[in-house]
Amino acid sequence: MNLDRFLDETRSLVNTALDRVLPSASDVPVRLHEAMRYAVFAGGKRLRPAIARAACTSLGGSDDDAMPAACALEMLHTYSLIHDDLPAIDNDDLRRGQPTCHKQFDVATAILAGDGLHTQAFLVLARAPRAADLVLELAQAAGTHGMVGGEIADIEAEGREPDVATVELIHELKTAALFRASAVMGGIAANGGTAELDALRIYGTALGIAFQIVDDILDETSDAKTMGKSTGKDRAARKMSYPAAVGLDESRARARECAEEAIAALAPIPNSDVLAALAKFTVTRIR
Amino acid sequence: MNLDRFLDETRSLVNTALDRVLPSASDVPVRLHEAMRYAVFAGGKRLRPAIARAACTSLGGSDDDAMPAACALEMLHTYSLIHDDLPAIDNDDLRRGQPTCHKQFDVATAILAGDGLHTQAFLVLARAPRAADLVLELAQAAGTHGMVGGEIADIEAEGREPDVATVELIHELKTAALFRASAVMGGIAANGGTAELDALRIYGTALGIAFQIVDDILDETSDAKTMGKSTGKDRAARKMSYPAAVGLDESRARARECAEEAIAALAPIPNSDVLAALAKFTVTRIR
Repeated sequence: MNLDRFLDETRSLVNTALDRVLPSASDVPVRLHEAMRYAVFAGGKRLRPAIARAACTSLGGSDDDAMPAACALEMLHTYSLIHDDLPAIDNDDLRRGQPTCHKQFDVATAILAGDGLHTQAFLVLARAPRAADLVLELAQAAGTHGMVGGEIADIEAEGREPDVATVELIHELKTAALFRASAVMGGIAANGGTAELDALRIYGTALGIAFQIVDDILDETSDAKTMGKSTGKDRAARKMSYPAAVGLDESRARARECAEEAIAALAPIPNSDVLAALAKFTVTRIR
Repeated sequence: MNLDRFLDETRSLVNTALDRVLPSASDVPVRLHEAMRYAVFAGGKRLRPAIARAACTSLGGSDDDAMPAACALEMLHTYSLIHDDLPAIDNDDLRRGQPTCHKQFDVATAILAGDGLHTQAFLVLARAPRAADLVLELAQAAGTHGMVGGEIADIEAEGREPDVATVELIHELKTAALFRASAVMGGIAANGGTAELDALRIYGTALGIAFQIVDDILDETSDAKTMGKSTGKDRAARKMSYPAAVGLDESRARARECAEEAIAALAPIPNSDVLAALAKFTVTRIR
């Protein structure tokens, strides 16, 4: 199994599917649809769709089965990036190597484009098989006990003395909740049973924490050109990052440990090699 | 049937239900949950829940059957008010007689509180019977071919020469879509058939257009104290309102006409007296 090829295929599959489920840029209101498409197609690794696709196929589901969940996850993720980048929140000018949505358009359009993508994610799931289960999983991960809760916890922690418990809570809510949903929704799309979904839940959570620790490390050690987004921002904004709490070496060790936990959780999953490779990739990626 | 009593009962029922489905204000992250509850419990007529409840009971459903839809509609509506009031959009300081969410808290918290309510609406529906149908109906009404599309069309039309076709399109997207969903979701919650849901769809749309025309009229003719929100803003912002396009007299006539259309659509609905009374109330309300 070649992971690069899997990720390339996923990008191609999910981009085609997103193009189909997003309103056309020539649809009224044109500016809103342009802004939504601008943000969605500005690049991005499509990591959450890749996790959903890998989870779905690991249980014998098809690529087509995985696409509603994959598209919904990417739209939900993109909405969160648009809102996070806003001047009132992280005030970022650069995202995926391009001007952020509010720089390219304006703040009002960016707020509403994020809102549009947020709704569109649930619209896509409503038309899929097992819609109620998929909507429940995504809404739990995206809500105030998940991603949105993590955003505000992140803002609230700014400037406070870093402690590892707070950082871990922020990571769990802000990032790991949606990674968990990615794995579980892929499993639901393949009609996975309880034991399989439970395994995917543990896998996704550990993977998400590993991913966010590596993201924090790269924010300290990489540059904007490599990352396609501003770096060094955590330290400048006095964000409570993992390296700020425990240092770079211990952060690297903890990220590897989480990736191993993710892989260990895959025991009940029949064809788990892509999922395992994704966990390894997460801790070795350069961007 | 006493409509005042019906509206009072609805407020009480839906406020109790909202209190149950919203995260507690003492739950972490506290500030986010406080802001969500502040916006939801700042008052409001609960008109969309009332439509959903009336539609549900008109087809023999119970109040309990209607509550998931009623709560989701009110949370969705409240999220849209929070985001519309933001400085980058309508920049309003007053809503339902209280400081707007971003004035009471801050802009970042208001954006995220809106996002949290948006997700929470779908979370509540995911746990209800006929979840997929309810999510589909709400997402269509809230999305870019509905409410969010109407917001941006509204912004884009500012300062342009008013024309009635554009105003009607804005009203249909911005307001009538969610009124339509309120009626249809109430019908779905009562397990309504196709003919009944189609009738509720026409009723809700016509009711929503009537409501928005009256809202435009009141923005010109009423005051902030009576309305609990800033007035005269349409004219100041050169918004494309119905009175700006056709004058107050023709606006009043058109609102009455829409209310009559709504009532006429109720022919296939068994117990439609509350729905009819809501349509009459919409064009006679003072706030």
